[in-house]
Amino acid sequence: MPVSISSAFDSGNIEVVRKASETDWVLRIAKDAGGRFFQWFHFRLAGARGLPVVLRIVGLNGSAYPEGWPGYAARISADRIRWTTAETHFEKGSDDGTLTIRVTPASDFLWIAYFAPYPLERHFDLVSRMALKPGFSARVLGLSLDGRPIDLLEVGDGPCPVWIYARQHPGETMAEWFMEGLLEALADPACASARLVRRAARLHLVPNMNPDGAFRGYLRTNAAGANLNREWADPSPERAPEVLAVRRAMDETGVAFALDVHGDESLPHNFIAGFEGIPTLRPGQLERLHRFTERLALHAPEFQTAVGYPPSLPGKANLGMSTNQLAERFGCVAATLEMPFKDCAELPAPETQWSPARAKALARSTLAALADLLPELR
Amino acid sequence: MPVSISSAFDSGNIEVVRKASETDWVLRIAKDAGGRFFQWFHFRLAGARGLPVVLRIVGLNGSAYPEGWPGYAARISADRIRWTTAETHFEKGSDDGTLTIRVTPASDFLWIAYFAPYPLERHFDLVSRMALKPGFSARVLGLSLDGRPIDLLEVGDGPCPVWIYARQHPGETMAEWFMEGLLEALADPACASARLVRRAARLHLVPNMNPDGAFRGYLRTNAAGANLNREWADPSPERAPEVLAVRRAMDETGVAFALDVHGDESLPHNFIAGFEGIPTLRPGQLERLHRFTERLALHAPEFQTAVGYPPSLPGKANLGMSTNQLAERFGCVAATLEMPFKDCAELPAPETQWSPARAKALARSTLAALADLLPELR
Amino acid sequence: MPVSISSAFDSGNIEVVRKASETDWVLRIAKDAGGRFFQWFHFRLAGARGLPVVLRIVGLNGSAYPEGWPGYAARISADRIRWTTAETHFEKGSDDGTLTIRVTPASDFLWIAYFAPYPLERHFDLVSRMALKPGFSARVLGLSLDGRPIDLLEVGDGPCPVWIYARQHPGETMAEWFMEGLLEALADPACASARLVRRAARLHLVPNMNPDGAFRGYLRTNAAGANLNREWADPSPERAPEVLAVRRAMDETGVAFALDVHGDESLPHNFIAGFEGIPTLRPGQLERLHRFTERLALHAPEFQTAVGYPPSLPGKANLGMSTNQLAERFGCVAATLEMPFKDCAELPAPETQWSPARAKALARSTLAALADLLPELR
Amino acid sequence: MPVSISSAFDSGNIEVVRKASETDWVLRIAKDAGGRFFQWFHFRLAGARGLPVVLRIVGLNGSAYPEGWPGYAARISADRIRWTTAETHFEKGSDDGTLTIRVTPASDFLWIAYFAPYPLERHFDLVSRMALKPGFSARVLGLSLDGRPIDLLEVGDGPCPVWIYARQHPGETMAEWFMEGLLEALADPACASARLVRRAARLHLVPNMNPDGAFRGYLRTNAAGANLNREWADPSPERAPEVLAVRRAMDETGVAFALDVHGDESLPHNFIAGFEGIPTLRPGQLERLHRFTERLALHAPEFQTAVGYPPSLPGKANLGMSTNQLAERFGCVAATLEMPFKDCAELPAPETQWSPARAKALARSTLAALADLLPELR
Repeated sequence: MPVSISSAFDSGNIEVVRKASETDWVLRIAKDAGGRFFQWFHFRLAGARGLPVVLRIVGLNGSAYPEGWPGYAARISADRIRWTTAETHFEKGSDDGTLTIRVTPASDFLWIAYFAPYPLERHFDLVSRMALKPGFSARVLGLSLDGRPIDLLEVGDGPCPVWIYARQHPGETMAEWFMEGLLEALADPACASARLVRRAARLHLVPNMNPDGAFRGYLRTNAAGANLNREWADPSPERAPEVLAVRRAMDETGVAFALDVHGDESLPHNFIAGFEGIPTLRPGQLERLHRFTERLALHAPEFQTAVGYPPSLPGKANLGMSTNQLAERFGCVAATLEMPFKDCAELPAPETQWSPARAKALARSTLAALADLLPELR
Repeated sequence: MPVSISSAFDSGNIEVVRKASETDWVLRIAKDAGGRFFQWFHFRLAGARGLPVVLRIVGLNGSAYPEGWPGYAARISADRIRWTTAETHFEKGSDDGTLTIRVTPASDFLWIAYFAPYPLERHFDLVSRMALKPGFSARVLGLSLDGRPIDLLEVGDGPCPVWIYARQHPGETMAEWFMEGLLEALADPACASARLVRRAARLHLVPNMNPDGAFRGYLRTNAAGANLNREWADPSPERAPEVLAVRRAMDETGVAFALDVHGDESLPHNFIAGFEGIPTLRPGQLERLHRFTERLALHAPEFQTAVGYPPSLPGKANLGMSTNQLAERFGCVAATLEMPFKDCAELPAPETQWSPARAKALARSTLAALADLLPELR
Repeated sequence: MPVSISSAFDSGNIEVVRKASETDWVLRIAKDAGGRFFQWFHFRLAGARGLPVVLRIVGLNGSAYPEGWPGYAARISADRIRWTTAETHFEKGSDDGTLTIRVTPASDFLWIAYFAPYPLERHFDLVSRMALKPGFSARVLGLSLDGRPIDLLEVGDGPCPVWIYARQHPGETMAEWFMEGLLEALADPACASARLVRRAARLHLVPNMNPDGAFRGYLRTNAAGANLNREWADPSPERAPEVLAVRRAMDETGVAFALDVHGDESLPHNFIAGFEGIPTLRPGQLERLHRFTERLALHAPEFQTAVGYPPSLPGKANLGMSTNQLAERFGCVAATLEMPFKDCAELPAPETQWSPARAKALARSTLAALADLLPELR
Repeated sequence: MPVSISSAFDSGNIEVVRKASETDWVLRIAKDAGGRFFQWFHFRLAGARGLPVVLRIVGLNGSAYPEGWPGYAARISADRIRWTTAETHFEKGSDDGTLTIRVTPASDFLWIAYFAPYPLERHFDLVSRMALKPGFSARVLGLSLDGRPIDLLEVGDGPCPVWIYARQHPGETMAEWFMEGLLEALADPACASARLVRRAARLHLVPNMNPDGAFRGYLRTNAAGANLNREWADPSPERAPEVLAVRRAMDETGVAFALDVHGDESLPHNFIAGFEGIPTLRPGQLERLHRFTERLALHAPEFQTAVGYPPSLPGKANLGMSTNQLAERFGCVAATLEMPFKDCAELPAPETQWSPARAKALARSTLAALADLLPELR
């Protein structure tokens, strides 16, 4: 019974370059539409129970974030529920960058991915379940290029319009795990932060802004090859209908606070990126962002403020990015939340590195920080 | 907020002919590859919470089984877990056959389908979970035309080779619900029938023979438009690689008992179809089939033997159908199990009609009948 | 940190005769009220993680069923959910009958019992949960001597009065596990047998007739030392108010079929005991019992009819036993169902021997046999 | 079928004074041993489905906390899982203080209690389950007067000895719900606070210090009528062996931080009581307590510092109370955490008032506050 590899499923991505032997495979990652980005992988190894298998993913010096590979460990799961790390090693000098994964599967099926996947079926389960919770409603903001709905959930009775949206970059699946945690907290009658936030704000939540890229196993783009988080200045229906749909809905509700949820391939940290370089900074606008960031650090031991992206220079912000666009457009507090693909260096957990459960826990802390900030936003 | 309909997901199938108003839609079903068959539908209605919606699916006189519509009720679910029936009415004389579904959704998302769907993600969850159970192993028999794996699970320490396979016709999702029930029973240490069967037989179980058709929302064909259950006489790698892969594996193990699991669109009954017209009936071969059928009737109050398909005349069996092919090829007991899309007239449950839970219960009874038969097959 | 043993909890029963060392204990079982019976034990071993502990229960030649010990294995659980068997050995000639249990606990708490316990808290959870199911109602038939309620659940719309009652002998906990399985099946809309039975009969179900004995950790008696299954001829409010309450309710409803659920300490089999020796056998009465028994054998591979108690001689039946009393009193089909404490020899499972899950599965088969019989009882 | 009331079960407490009619009952609460305290009640109402029942608990001006009744709502549950509030009214001038509860049960069994009960069976389930978690161990500190074990769970690899103990007052069941939340958080690999605490401290956790009082349905005392939280100065084996066992173990480990978990009958707030009046205040000792309190307020929106008990005057602390005794004995930070029986006025939830789920959420916040404090305790 031969060992086989397949990726013909939701968010699958791998190509077999060469099967050197049953237990020695050379693989590469397919590129997003547009041919520019690749980093996300997801495949199933079958028939290798008890065999010491070596998987070499080559050509990674050309990946979107070559610096993402050192210190990173591939995620594996036999039951598709519990994901742990595999022995993983990166060598820059070999085959234009090789990630070597060594596993001896305990089951005939082993799932291997860049991070625990969040399939569209789980997305539909999530939004359907949450739409039934007391106080929640749902609507479709528009369609992706492949015709998939951009789903929005709404909850809260307060005056303050809050938008939280995720997975502009589809391969950053921790962003939708974060949204799942956020939604579950918001529906939990015993979560005091959630009750405070629902009292003060109206929340508009987009768990997945890029369902096409998600399904196709892309890292960063939609079906047209657009990096959605560069399309916010002037989103077109041909290139970024996903952004256009969300921005239009934001224009209708206004935005007092916006959070764009992401994963970062390189830095082993949770951090916030702001909107320092926008043309029209309003009084107190950056201070409120910093207060939010401080409160998040206080509530979340795995979040920190020391390491992050360098802020853009005055006036130099890229208004194609949602955080800048929204901060400029609405004078609101806008933030990009980045979670690691690697581990969180503040409190490492090598058995899983950063994980769905940790992303969901961070969402609860984010709700606490938001509850602290909301009185200032009225 | 407008009402919308989408089907851009696993096994989705609907086309909007006309949106007469927010609450009045005219729909039609897309055809399988080959352009011959259509009957399966599956879509999401969004934004209609509290609104009395009328959905008219037209053109059904041309569907695969026009007689399937009278007495049938569409299945709906808000949470994608519990599926019930909607008020449904068929009118042959209107718009070439119209099925009218009336719903007032209690949620902003309502899922509507011909039968409770069984998505590929659930398939992968199932096979991954079962492959981990003590005594189970798994392997990939081959690939579908779209490159999806044909997964096989195996269990049992006995000498008797048993094959049970499902979803040759992808829209008959109850067949995979049946397989889920069968696999769970086989892994249940408190199921005495399962223990008897595992002791006497080696079971080879294919939960889904047609993943491409399943994902594409087809009723009967694979990606090439082939009705797999007519391809068993001479399966080609171009037209029916799914059948070829399974038949080859059967040739390796031999077959003493085969069960092909289906749904029937028209008859409100569970029943068995046999292999009466094969060229080479072996002594006792049909008697053993009848014994199996009798035992199943005895164990399953919702199974019956009075109504079914007329047996083929002597020598007239279609050897392209798996049951005939296997009975002829191996001299084995082979049976086609049909479950209803409608209700089961023997014990109707109008709130759900035939359902995943009932299919899973029938699988447990099938195991009991198989345990009774196995001593005769040695 | 010393090793300790305690039994100060629901259905706890053990006495420490001597602690020879931290890992070597001599124990004995406390007697039921009345000082006649003992066999049930249940205690917690604490602080012995990783230590090879030897537990010797002595004086067992005087227990209620000395022949119950050979071939029997003590049940253990670390989490109180999953119960398995421990290495167990009986020596008749040592210390008036010694059962030696050897365990090396994987946890600081290990629970050890004659059979998986069924605490009163679980009883209250069960009856409260079932009383909420559609079509179910509940009432209190009377009070035990210690003031505990005798709870009755009722379900079914048919004319045929059926009574199923359990745990007259409190140490036979498999009887209440059986009742749990029966109740869950009756509430399962996908259980065809249950639907047939609910259509044909009115079921009156007493999950626990002896809550006092159960809580006190007794094998056979109530708080007054009465063996309830000898008190049915003339139950007094002082000695057996539990029986009186149930019998009065039976007189009000009538009884067409009665099942008294028990465990048998000695025989490694499931079997039925009947009412052969009652004074007034009605025409067809015994035949109907035999039909029920046959159908049960057919539905339950772990039930058999070859081994059991010898039937009482004509006219010699003990009318203090419920099965005889009810068969005589109502002319009904009455049966005593016995399940083993040991394994079931027909299909042994040494890792658990007879178990809660197997008792629950047998209950489902019993429902199937009852569904088969009910048409004859109209 | 008559309506009946029973309390013959774990933590049951009610006496029927008079059954005026099937739907009109006059009740009173039995006193703790010692005859001084009463407030806890817990009983089951049977047979009242659909009937408007009035339950009058009289004589409450003599209860332990008469001021506990105004603003309080009785808790009810049909399934023993979800507890909500019933319509409840207190009249001081009627029958020496009458609490009137009006319910129309939706089920034949309705459970009514002062607060959601925490039975001993759940305690044993909890400690058994937690003892199996990675890094946890368990031991028995001693026995209660009725012979029940005082169970201790331990976890954490740090040098700082932390003790958290609950239910000195057995009727304050929210204290054990809090412990359940705390233990689950400590075992959650995604809880960052838990990981910080486990790294810095060794935690010693006593979920239930008074199992006898808990089982007997008492409010404040053990089986000897002792209020355990007045026995810490000189605990005797005859009167307070529970305290003696715990204090001895504390002497062995030392104590750097101690938290005594309670419920308060009167105040609708969560708050901390300290040790202000102990004879020997160490430098920084009170400051560290205040820092802990501030951090808890910061992490828990339902905790506050404005309302609480007046601190004892310098040198006037009652050293029979654990918090004072431990602060004096070890120079440690010691605190009494009080949760309400009523609602939490900061963020009311009238449908449940204070609840198990809120107590468990507060435990997670407490862990966060402890993580913040631990660096100061080294």
